[in-house]
Amino acid sequence: MRKPKKERQILLKETIEQKPFITDEALAKLFQVSIQTIRLDRMELNIPELRERIKSVAASNWNETVKALPLEEVIGEIIDLELDKRAISILDITKDHVFSRNKIARGHHLFAQANSLAVAVINDDLALTANAEIKFTRQVVEGERVIAKARVLGQDKPSRTKVEVESFVDNEMVFQGDFVMYRSNQ
Amino acid sequence: MRKPKKERQILLKETIEQKPFITDEALAKLFQVSIQTIRLDRMELNIPELRERIKSVAASNWNETVKALPLEEVIGEIIDLELDKRAISILDITKDHVFSRNKIARGHHLFAQANSLAVAVINDDLALTANAEIKFTRQVVEGERVIAKARVLGQDKPSRTKVEVESFVDNEMVFQGDFVMYRSNQ
Repeated sequence: MRKPKKERQILLKETIEQKPFITDEALAKLFQVSIQTIRLDRMELNIPELRERIKSVAASNWNETVKALPLEEVIGEIIDLELDKRAISILDITKDHVFSRNKIARGHHLFAQANSLAVAVINDDLALTANAEIKFTRQVVEGERVIAKARVLGQDKPSRTKVEVESFVDNEMVFQGDFVMYRSNQ
Repeated sequence: MRKPKKERQILLKETIEQKPFITDEALAKLFQVSIQTIRLDRMELNIPELRERIKSVAASNWNETVKALPLEEVIGEIIDLELDKRAISILDITKDHVFSRNKIARGHHLFAQANSLAVAVINDDLALTANAEIKFTRQVVEGERVIAKARVLGQDKPSRTKVEVESFVDNEMVFQGDFVMYRSNQ
C-alpha cells in the first residue's frame, strides 16, 4: 500500500541509512512510487544519489593508486581502495553484458568485475590469478548495478594472497568468489 | 641444432600426428626454422593448417546446434559440439585480451571462453552457471591460440549438470574449470 509522502520520506531516510547501496529503482519498487518521486524525495531530504553515497561510505580519503594494472583496465569503476586490504567497484549491467535471449547478465562479466578487483587490490606490480572458487548466487539482469567488495584475507604462501570478493545488487549477494592471487614480491 | 629438410619433414609429420593441436609457431620454435618454412613443409607434406586439423580431429559430422545461446554469443569459435556430451572451441589471444603491461592474457577471457562453452554444450534453452572451481595453470600470452574442451560429466541433481572444461595451448594445459550448470529441463 502506498504511504503518504511524509511517512514515505521518513521511511526512505531510514531505509537508505540501513542500506546505503540501495538503488532508486529498488526504492521506487519498495514504496510503490515512480523513480522520479524517489529522486524528488531524495532532493527534498538532501540525500545524495547512490554513487555519491557509496563514495561517502567508502574510505573518506581514498588516495591510493592501483598498482597491478592500469586503472582503465579494471572492469567496473573502482570507488574505494586500500591496497592489500580492501576495494570496492561498481558495474552497471547494460545490454552488452546480458544474454540477448533472457537479459540475464553473463557470468563472465560478473567474474571479470570481481577478478579485476582482486587484481587491483594487490599491492604489487604483478598480480595474476592462480585459482578461484566462485558462486553465482542470484541472477542479475540488465539495468541493475553490481557493487563488488574485495577483502584481502591474507597469504598462505609468500607469493600467494587470498582475496574474497562479494558482489551485491541492492544489498543482495549475487556473486561470491575466493581468489588465490599470485604476486611477485614478499 | 637445425636438422636437414628431409629429416625435419619426417619429424614434423610425426610431431603433428602426436599433437594435432600444435601451432605453426610452436613447430617453428621446435625445429628452429621460420614459420614460413613450416608452412612450406606442411604444403609439401599435404598437412592441412591447424584449424583444419582440429576440425578433422573433431566429430567427423558436427551437425548439432547450440541451444542455450545464440552461436555468436559464444566467446571463441566452436568447432565441435555434441550436446550434453562435449564441445571444443578456439580463441586466438589478441592484444584486446591481454594486460597492456606484460601481454599476459587476462583471466576473465580464458574464463569467458570456458564458461560460454560450458553453457553452449548444454542441451537446453536455459543454461546458467551456478558455481565453478577454476585453475589457471600456466600463463597465456598475446598471439597464442587457446583450445578449450568441454566434457559433460553428468548430473548430481536433475537441474544441475557438471561440465569440466580444460583449455590448452599447444597441448599444454593453461586452464581447468569444473562448472556446475543450472538448466531448466530434466
